[in-house]
Amino acid sequence: MSWEENVRKVEPYIPGEQPKDKNIIKLNTNENPYPPCPAVRKILDNFDEDRMRLYPDPDSDVLVSAIAERYGLKKSQVFVGVGSDDVISMAFMTFFNSYKPILFPDVTYSFYDVWAEVYRIPYECKPLDGNFRINPDDYKCENGGIIFPNPNAPTGVLENTEMIEDIIKSNSDSVVMIDEAYIDFGGESCLKLIDKYDNLLVIQTFSKSRSMAGMRIGFAMGNEKLIKFMNDVKFSVNSYTMNHITQLCGAEAIKDEKYFNETVNKIIHIRENTKKELSALGFEFTDSKSNFIFAKHRSMSGEEIFNKLKENKIFVRYWNKPKISQYLRITVGMPDEMKKLIDVLKEILS
Amino acid sequence: MSWEENVRKVEPYIPGEQPKDKNIIKLNTNENPYPPCPAVRKILDNFDEDRMRLYPDPDSDVLVSAIAERYGLKKSQVFVGVGSDDVISMAFMTFFNSYKPILFPDVTYSFYDVWAEVYRIPYECKPLDGNFRINPDDYKCENGGIIFPNPNAPTGVLENTEMIEDIIKSNSDSVVMIDEAYIDFGGESCLKLIDKYDNLLVIQTFSKSRSMAGMRIGFAMGNEKLIKFMNDVKFSVNSYTMNHITQLCGAEAIKDEKYFNETVNKIIHIRENTKKELSALGFEFTDSKSNFIFAKHRSMSGEEIFNKLKENKIFVRYWNKPKISQYLRITVGMPDEMKKLIDVLKEILS
Repeated sequence: MSWEENVRKVEPYIPGEQPKDKNIIKLNTNENPYPPCPAVRKILDNFDEDRMRLYPDPDSDVLVSAIAERYGLKKSQVFVGVGSDDVISMAFMTFFNSYKPILFPDVTYSFYDVWAEVYRIPYECKPLDGNFRINPDDYKCENGGIIFPNPNAPTGVLENTEMIEDIIKSNSDSVVMIDEAYIDFGGESCLKLIDKYDNLLVIQTFSKSRSMAGMRIGFAMGNEKLIKFMNDVKFSVNSYTMNHITQLCGAEAIKDEKYFNETVNKIIHIRENTKKELSALGFEFTDSKSNFIFAKHRSMSGEEIFNKLKENKIFVRYWNKPKISQYLRITVGMPDEMKKLIDVLKEILS
Repeated sequence: MSWEENVRKVEPYIPGEQPKDKNIIKLNTNENPYPPCPAVRKILDNFDEDRMRLYPDPDSDVLVSAIAERYGLKKSQVFVGVGSDDVISMAFMTFFNSYKPILFPDVTYSFYDVWAEVYRIPYECKPLDGNFRINPDDYKCENGGIIFPNPNAPTGVLENTEMIEDIIKSNSDSVVMIDEAYIDFGGESCLKLIDKYDNLLVIQTFSKSRSMAGMRIGFAMGNEKLIKFMNDVKFSVNSYTMNHITQLCGAEAIKDEKYFNETVNKIIHIRENTKKELSALGFEFTDSKSNFIFAKHRSMSGEEIFNKLKENKIFVRYWNKPKISQYLRITVGMPDEMKKLIDVLKEILS
């Protein structure tokens, strides 16, 4: 017998590579190619470093208020965390406590099964169809909770809110979480449904559309009761998570609607252009409504293209997993980065 | 039946008040009265805000390296988290997984039972003696793990490393965590024992002696196997927790040994002076080796003094709990703040 027997052993999640070489074209972790809104510079310049000695506001009031105002909610309907990973992980711990399996698609964000394992939550994966679409009937059985991203990751496929509402309505005994990390790039949010269904939690992030992956801000919106339960658990794990600078920068980012719209629209524009170019090169892809393109080539294998791009210092994401092993997930970068990508692909495929 | 039945329900931890009124003398959450080391200003000034769009280094290499160098360890012996609360909570989840109760003192950091509740870990509290001392024999029974702070909170009492080594040695089948949040204010660390005992985890924080409560940095040191297990769990919960600015500021703070020694010594000096003044006013207290004084008055109740100080805009910490309901925990502040405290106490007690 040894202390090792009592260790919680897990297969840790392996995040996309964060190379330190600055010459790499980094299209592998869905970061926004544009900097955050200009006002964050002022926050850093004016930040009184003496403030670091004091604990941050545990309620993140400045940030929660800004989010609530932007989305027309009460502050008590908004939960914030250290990236949407923190928010979803906390939501798993808070709401997925039955002995029934939680449900999510077989092709989806690769953290869901990791969280289920670490918190020892039983789960069942529901297969997407041949076009990577959800069949709502799969989610009408007994379950301990439901989660899926919309648009889905890594496929980029957007489901409409009517179909999602049907799932939420059929599951009044479970919490249904819609992970909207990519919703701002052309999707319709389920936020409009949170007053109608008390079992709906909508989760978003500052990492993609707000160019702040590096600051770690995610948030959830739902009815006050859901948010209160989450805060109770959060305050039992770590009362002070988001530091003061982050709260201030986040509040500025949410206020600058003009900059947000400009950069999101640019990304959508680059995405659609890149789709055309990829198509001309023999790629097929889903109609992604996110800041990435999920594409496979007609003749060359995904793994081969992935490796050849890497040799050319272009990083994209590849998973050797069932159903998607021919696909690459390519983050939408700057126009010159996408041009380089297309040029290199032309070479590789010639 | 409703989704509410499956919610993890907890009594959330209530942190010390974070008043927004700047005229309050804040001696209630053990923050350092001195600002962080001067180099953090340069970090903020020189930080390229474009960097915010990228995910931070998930390994926090710059910070882990600085800590490892400072304490003469390998990088693989250091774990970092969002405050020591994050580190300890992660350690509870990683190491306290048996069905046997974990052990900690009856008077101690008030988060231990909260974490045990939220993670559903059975626990047993071992009574401190009349002088708030640990009896090592209490920790020589079957258990699922052991944790206590040294110096203890909120008493400030320091135990010697020989007694602690005895406990570690007697528990080779459990992980023993020593929470050294306050060790830099006059105690001897158990760090010297980590190569000798593979079941020892030493936890420290930047919130107290490094004036960075607001940035949220905690760390654990132990043998490589322990640290690897913790990182596996951490990467399964949230790969990217500590943002880039925080990693850089933390690394500067750990490098500036001179500033660290100066401010720590000033605080020790103010603490010892304040003890004398409190003694003259009829207070009794433990021989605190931390950045707070744990004191009770010979004739006036703790609760009454607490309330009267609050009326005078001086916040200290008070718990209406067995054994300590007559005590106040008073953080060591700036000399002028301590003078004001003593003046107001004189009035209250006259």
